[in-house]
Amino acid sequence: MTKDAVQGAAEEADQAQSKKGLKKQQKEAEKAAKKAEKQAKLAADTQSTDEDDFAKDRYGVPQMVQSQQKLDRVLVRVQKLTPEKADQLIWVRARVHTSRAKGKQCFLVLRQQQFNVQALVAVGERASKQMVKFAANINKESIVDVEAMVRKVEQKIESCTQQDVELHIERFNLESTVNVEIFVISQAEPRLPLQLEDCVRPDGEGDEDGRATVNQDTRLDNRVIDLRTTTSQAIFRLQSGVCQLFRDTLTNKGFVEIQTPKIISAASEGGANVFTVSYFKTSAYLAQSPQLYKQMCICADFDKVFCVGPVFRAEDSNTHRHLTEFVGLDIELAFNYHYHEVIESITDTMVQIFKGLRDKFQTEIQTVGKQYPSEPFRFLEPTLRLEYTEGVAMLREAGVDMGDEEDLSTPNEKLLGRLVKEKYDTDFYVLDKYPLAVRPFYTMPDPNDKKYSNSYDMFMRGEEILSGAQRIHDAQLLTERAIHHNIDLEKIKSYIDSFRYGAPPHGGGGIGLERVCMLYLGLHNVRQVSMFPRDPKRLTP
Amino acid sequence: MTKDAVQGAAEEADQAQSKKGLKKQQKEAEKAAKKAEKQAKLAADTQSTDEDDFAKDRYGVPQMVQSQQKLDRVLVRVQKLTPEKADQLIWVRARVHTSRAKGKQCFLVLRQQQFNVQALVAVGERASKQMVKFAANINKESIVDVEAMVRKVEQKIESCTQQDVELHIERFNLESTVNVEIFVISQAEPRLPLQLEDCVRPDGEGDEDGRATVNQDTRLDNRVIDLRTTTSQAIFRLQSGVCQLFRDTLTNKGFVEIQTPKIISAASEGGANVFTVSYFKTSAYLAQSPQLYKQMCICADFDKVFCVGPVFRAEDSNTHRHLTEFVGLDIELAFNYHYHEVIESITDTMVQIFKGLRDKFQTEIQTVGKQYPSEPFRFLEPTLRLEYTEGVAMLREAGVDMGDEEDLSTPNEKLLGRLVKEKYDTDFYVLDKYPLAVRPFYTMPDPNDKKYSNSYDMFMRGEEILSGAQRIHDAQLLTERAIHHNIDLEKIKSYIDSFRYGAPPHGGGGIGLERVCMLYLGLHNVRQVSMFPRDPKRLTP
Repeated sequence: MTKDAVQGAAEEADQAQSKKGLKKQQKEAEKAAKKAEKQAKLAADTQSTDEDDFAKDRYGVPQMVQSQQKLDRVLVRVQKLTPEKADQLIWVRARVHTSRAKGKQCFLVLRQQQFNVQALVAVGERASKQMVKFAANINKESIVDVEAMVRKVEQKIESCTQQDVELHIERFNLESTVNVEIFVISQAEPRLPLQLEDCVRPDGEGDEDGRATVNQDTRLDNRVIDLRTTTSQAIFRLQSGVCQLFRDTLTNKGFVEIQTPKIISAASEGGANVFTVSYFKTSAYLAQSPQLYKQMCICADFDKVFCVGPVFRAEDSNTHRHLTEFVGLDIELAFNYHYHEVIESITDTMVQIFKGLRDKFQTEIQTVGKQYPSEPFRFLEPTLRLEYTEGVAMLREAGVDMGDEEDLSTPNEKLLGRLVKEKYDTDFYVLDKYPLAVRPFYTMPDPNDKKYSNSYDMFMRGEEILSGAQRIHDAQLLTERAIHHNIDLEKIKSYIDSFRYGAPPHGGGGIGLERVCMLYLGLHNVRQVSMFPRDPKRLTP
Repeated sequence: MTKDAVQGAAEEADQAQSKKGLKKQQKEAEKAAKKAEKQAKLAADTQSTDEDDFAKDRYGVPQMVQSQQKLDRVLVRVQKLTPEKADQLIWVRARVHTSRAKGKQCFLVLRQQQFNVQALVAVGERASKQMVKFAANINKESIVDVEAMVRKVEQKIESCTQQDVELHIERFNLESTVNVEIFVISQAEPRLPLQLEDCVRPDGEGDEDGRATVNQDTRLDNRVIDLRTTTSQAIFRLQSGVCQLFRDTLTNKGFVEIQTPKIISAASEGGANVFTVSYFKTSAYLAQSPQLYKQMCICADFDKVFCVGPVFRAEDSNTHRHLTEFVGLDIELAFNYHYHEVIESITDTMVQIFKGLRDKFQTEIQTVGKQYPSEPFRFLEPTLRLEYTEGVAMLREAGVDMGDEEDLSTPNEKLLGRLVKEKYDTDFYVLDKYPLAVRPFYTMPDPNDKKYSNSYDMFMRGEEILSGAQRIHDAQLLTERAIHHNIDLEKIKSYIDSFRYGAPPHGGGGIGLERVCMLYLGLHNVRQVSMFPRDPKRLTP
């Protein structure tokens, strides 16, 4: 096959040349052909040039898996390799995490997601010296199929997750009909752009012994490799869990999931920080929030709704917590008489998420903690709710000089978080009744004090994760407030009209998924919890 | 409050004028003020000008719910109004669906989502004639709080979902301390842009007796009202169910949910049909599919992934089944030896969705069926898989003239769907092994016949809902195929590079959520199952 591939690539190169005459395309094809040739050589080198190799059929680089056949072979998960499987001959597919040759032996660490196991290929009755050499030369990160004997070990293998067993790819008290084999399913290039072990080293440990840590941009540039680390695997499994816990909790509360459009005709909140899209012969925008649509669903009798989806902000903020595209976990619900019904619904949802993570994702939390140590996340039940004025009083007591109707700066939010943690021992709380002046036009004013509003933020470890409010459900008051904010009524006409045909009192909020994950795990950069982050300077991969 | 609101609006108008001098803003404010005045008059008209009205405190238009107080009042759901609640005094919040005055009585139908109940306000010891007049004058679609007695009825009320009880807003064998009350929580404007009963009338029944049906554009223009119909409520609850069943099934199979970016730096498949976004000082695109990112996750060891999110197509197609933005249910998984493992995983997921809908959403299916009758959806277990050549043979037998490597036209897909239904009695099947020439460059060629490929489409009622394939997981072959398709390698460099460091064989597919809902329910336009559809001509609401 390798030969065919070389020829194929050359033919393709000819085709490309005659068709397009593009030098670049030709060069690429030549490069591809060269690479194929190199690989063929590699296979030839390692594989049986030696006709006398008695094990020659039991290792090598077979044809690419192209669904040639349906093999009736069970592949055991690395995680399942425990002493119960001792003395069984099994097949496993895994990556070569490390390989170390030592005389007539080769030790491999085989990795599958967060789990790894040691394997030994040793010259013996079943493994030839050529086979051991082949195993020793497999590039790191290649994917291999291995048939081996599971053996209990006397001394725990501290460097692997499967500490009590080892895989033996050699003859060792075997029936003569039994084989041991090792085949490369997908060959990695010999030079990796970064090393996995460097990616999981705790910050600050890089300098000892000249060992490297990898900077964030290099990691993000090579995200496919960076995501293979135990830390990344744990982070994104936990993130998947947050979404699931969020939805399951709300579904159990009778919420309906909705899908809201991301391409919208008008920028609702004045047009700042919004991305423009070319839309056939006109222009459109990317939604900064699903809020208007959530509210329309409330006006359309869906009563309690949620959605999970991308949110776009064209903000030129290059900070640890801003992304231009992130995932919003959005909630909106009608309430009966008081918007605290909404706050309780949201805080209870958050508490269910925190409990679910604590109970079901302890392994992931521990794994991330090895690289990024942090205090366990603390929360109260029921959730602490402070009024804005109380927060301001606490800050003033701590020496902060600020006005009653002034918004909280980011440093003050952080400081307040620390003060709250000291006083109430919680990393999660609600700050309620923000000054009306610092909130959007659709926020319901406080009925008793026109300086304040029925609005709230929620904080994790002193950083905002949710902003929400009782919304104005009356078209007339909404019009008044929009005018007060100098908003072009023409642009929000359909929004305001939504409230003309009977609208229940309602409220809600939007949660940033990445922030929740970052702050729950005590991480310090939102890019760590976004698989393929987007910021003003990053659009790839 | 109403008076204050009038004054407030006038003041706002003054402010707006002096601030911006915009005539339009002023006009809007005047309009708002006028409307407020009108509403005040309405309230005054209906409410107790008559000082002798003994019931005057028990009806009216109270202050807007602005969270003035936490009322300790239980609101009973309309759905729960059954004979078990007979002779209890309850509070309910619902919309006035219809109201009909008849002498000293007024019959209201109160609606809450899919459920409704009849209420009777009659002049008597507790209800004054003014109170009955007030009830009779409440605009349709207004939201009311009603305190009433639940009474069993002798004859079933055929026009309501709660057929065995009625609400009595009148004194009737009550303790003297007990009240009955009716308050308007949110007043609808007197003229609705469309009537709910016209929106749920089956097609074709419009002309009899001069009754109207409402055309789709009018309904979509007024989606907040159109979504209140029993049909819409059922459709979108079922859609929420499809998403939940999809995710739950995959989570149980060990899949991880991923979040992929929607703003991307390069249009992967040649740049046709892609929306352009202004991204700070450069340009970006909206993702036509999360496929490349799903595949990168597979290369990053997530093994089995899914995502649910918006997908964008800048296609100027104005058909019953095309949207420019729709929701993709996407799956990608590594497999061991044959891509049929992938097909089986996907078809099993679809079967779990079909079963879940059949078992848990029968009410919704029936409700939609009343307006849009269709045959129940049929499926087999295991799912029928036909090869492309078999499909072509069936079509040829039915008189269609087509080549071996020709793609299926939409009419031929439909025809094949009918032929398959006749022969196998299933509305869901897989067509496997498409001609290589009609599939994207990353499709794995068939190992045995280079005319074909390891790719498949899935169909519901003869329309495609999923397109998928084994993907090429080898950088070299991928390069060759990209060159063959004249794709600029520079633009897909990071995609191809993803496969250079060990990649398992894998495959997957993308399902259109709206198409699944449309076809499962036997509907005929994808806009019916998109809450706020986007097409080349529609960007609002």
